[in-house]
Amino acid sequence: MSRGFNFSAGPAALPEPVLLQAREELLEWQGERASVMELSHRGKAFVAAALRAEHDLRRLLAVPDEYAVLFLQGGATQQFALIPMNLAAPDQRADYLVTGHWGEKAIAEAQAVTRVHVAASSSAAGHTRIPDRADWDLDPTAAYVHYTPNETIHGVEFHQVPEVEAPLVADASSTILSRELDVSRFGLIYAGAQKNIGPAGLTVVIVRRDLLERSPRPLPKILTYAAHAANSSMLNTPPTFAWYLAGLVFEWIRQLGGLVAMAERNRAKAQALYAAIDGSGGYYRNPVDPACRSWMNVPFMLHDAALDAAFLTQAEAAGLLGLKGHRAVGGMRASIYNAMPPEGVAALCDFMRDFQRRHG
Amino acid sequence: MSRGFNFSAGPAALPEPVLLQAREELLEWQGERASVMELSHRGKAFVAAALRAEHDLRRLLAVPDEYAVLFLQGGATQQFALIPMNLAAPDQRADYLVTGHWGEKAIAEAQAVTRVHVAASSSAAGHTRIPDRADWDLDPTAAYVHYTPNETIHGVEFHQVPEVEAPLVADASSTILSRELDVSRFGLIYAGAQKNIGPAGLTVVIVRRDLLERSPRPLPKILTYAAHAANSSMLNTPPTFAWYLAGLVFEWIRQLGGLVAMAERNRAKAQALYAAIDGSGGYYRNPVDPACRSWMNVPFMLHDAALDAAFLTQAEAAGLLGLKGHRAVGGMRASIYNAMPPEGVAALCDFMRDFQRRHG
Repeated sequence: MSRGFNFSAGPAALPEPVLLQAREELLEWQGERASVMELSHRGKAFVAAALRAEHDLRRLLAVPDEYAVLFLQGGATQQFALIPMNLAAPDQRADYLVTGHWGEKAIAEAQAVTRVHVAASSSAAGHTRIPDRADWDLDPTAAYVHYTPNETIHGVEFHQVPEVEAPLVADASSTILSRELDVSRFGLIYAGAQKNIGPAGLTVVIVRRDLLERSPRPLPKILTYAAHAANSSMLNTPPTFAWYLAGLVFEWIRQLGGLVAMAERNRAKAQALYAAIDGSGGYYRNPVDPACRSWMNVPFMLHDAALDAAFLTQAEAAGLLGLKGHRAVGGMRASIYNAMPPEGVAALCDFMRDFQRRHG
Repeated sequence: MSRGFNFSAGPAALPEPVLLQAREELLEWQGERASVMELSHRGKAFVAAALRAEHDLRRLLAVPDEYAVLFLQGGATQQFALIPMNLAAPDQRADYLVTGHWGEKAIAEAQAVTRVHVAASSSAAGHTRIPDRADWDLDPTAAYVHYTPNETIHGVEFHQVPEVEAPLVADASSTILSRELDVSRFGLIYAGAQKNIGPAGLTVVIVRRDLLERSPRPLPKILTYAAHAANSSMLNTPPTFAWYLAGLVFEWIRQLGGLVAMAERNRAKAQALYAAIDGSGGYYRNPVDPACRSWMNVPFMLHDAALDAAFLTQAEAAGLLGLKGHRAVGGMRASIYNAMPPEGVAALCDFMRDFQRRHG
């Protein structure tokens, strides 16, 4: 047995050096005579690791001081609910830009909380492009504008941060840390960890502190961003192992050269894969407008869906794992997050060419 | 370096065989050529492990079919809020029995959601006893009666399930799986994992299905127990690694003989430690009414608090970790959950006698 190249969409591949270090110290961490999982989150050793992780994340993203960085639970889906609960009054308008499955989900949760307005949607185009900026129906006085910089299922990515007037809120689950980001353009950025940060069960929220002062409805503390910020994300017991692993991932990114190097690596990986698809003479096909093709999630269809099963079986035999597309889109999907090495993408491209030769 | 006996209150010691297995398969799990952390929660392999964990938990606790078992995020603290949100109308009375710190916390969160009534509290007695049953002011038509079967900080435990008319809701975080439990007596049982189940970041909720039909207010799905139950706890990405580890813990308990054997082991451990305290001629002291002393968390004070620092330093040097008491109570606290072997308690008792001899 040996490890394959794992193209899963999330939970997704973790950097192997991170897993090796976690294994090495799983039973005895940093001279503590216990696993990091077994230690109090309020003890010196864990608090130091937690602060180091926050510090490294702030440094990687150049997070300005006027933003709080929170390490929470509940996944991005819980933020779909907490964002309107914390930022919008019950009858206040919140604008949503929808370019795929996750934007739709965000709306479904927010609708129980506030007045959702779909400012633009690519639904009629099967979520294969970003609606023209001129057609966005935004209200400058909206509580916020929500969008999904990268749609994991449809493979649609904003390569620019949209210009809007209300505070911009981004579900960055599948794009955070894949490239540089100007945090100052945002009111709130959130991300489930299980793509580019660490294991499932951790959610990072980066929020401009002035937004924490909004208090549009009475809420239990545990559902209030301001309370989490005031308690350094230790209002309750945090997911300590996931936080620790995230810290190892941040360190790994730093050692690789930070987000400038990571962006270059990711751009090259995506370019290679799209080139293999586009150069197949229609044997493989990606339906997304080239202007907004995702660097992280590359859905592609075979020219004949009857070959899908053979493609998947043979890919798996070749150590290329997790390539089955989401049922909403069908076909294949290669998720090529930070932890996917260029060699994994090269192996996939080789396999695709070889498969076409054998089954073309 | 070697592992010590870890008396932390939570996150707490995990069974060493569980950690050894997790280490062994951390990079390659069950022929999947990836870590369990890297796999889709909807893939066959993880779904099978998740179902097996639920099955084993149901078997250990003999959970009746009319109860749903959920694996969630957010910790017990999030349940403090979700319970009233899901079970009580905004103006409906919910009765709370308070025997320590965590009962107080549960109330603080619930107050933002519903009409909390303190039916009984041991606060005036410094939370060292359970208020007399005759003095409980319960309303049979209350939405529910909430209590904390074991108070982790104050070391007060109910050794019987209280008789009440409204659905009984229990924060079993620090007692679940320590002994047998008649689940049919409860409306809802919840537990943060980081004491007797697994690592922090996972919360188990066992809820009678008829209560899922209550819908006292509009809620986002992610905050609704019924939606989690309808989606087998995969409404969103669950904390897969924590769920997997919990499964290993359940298997470990089964191999030790299930909850009957575990209860005997825990009763003996607690008896030995209380005997060491009570037999010290007042050198050590536990303030809790012997009728409700906890099997899991044993707070104790030295006769002279000036010796606390020396006790802790020497204990740590002897490999006895995490004994510092919670600041709300002071002194020491030994948490002796399932994963603490009898040898650990014996080592602590020996150390206490030796310390008394040397400093007495």
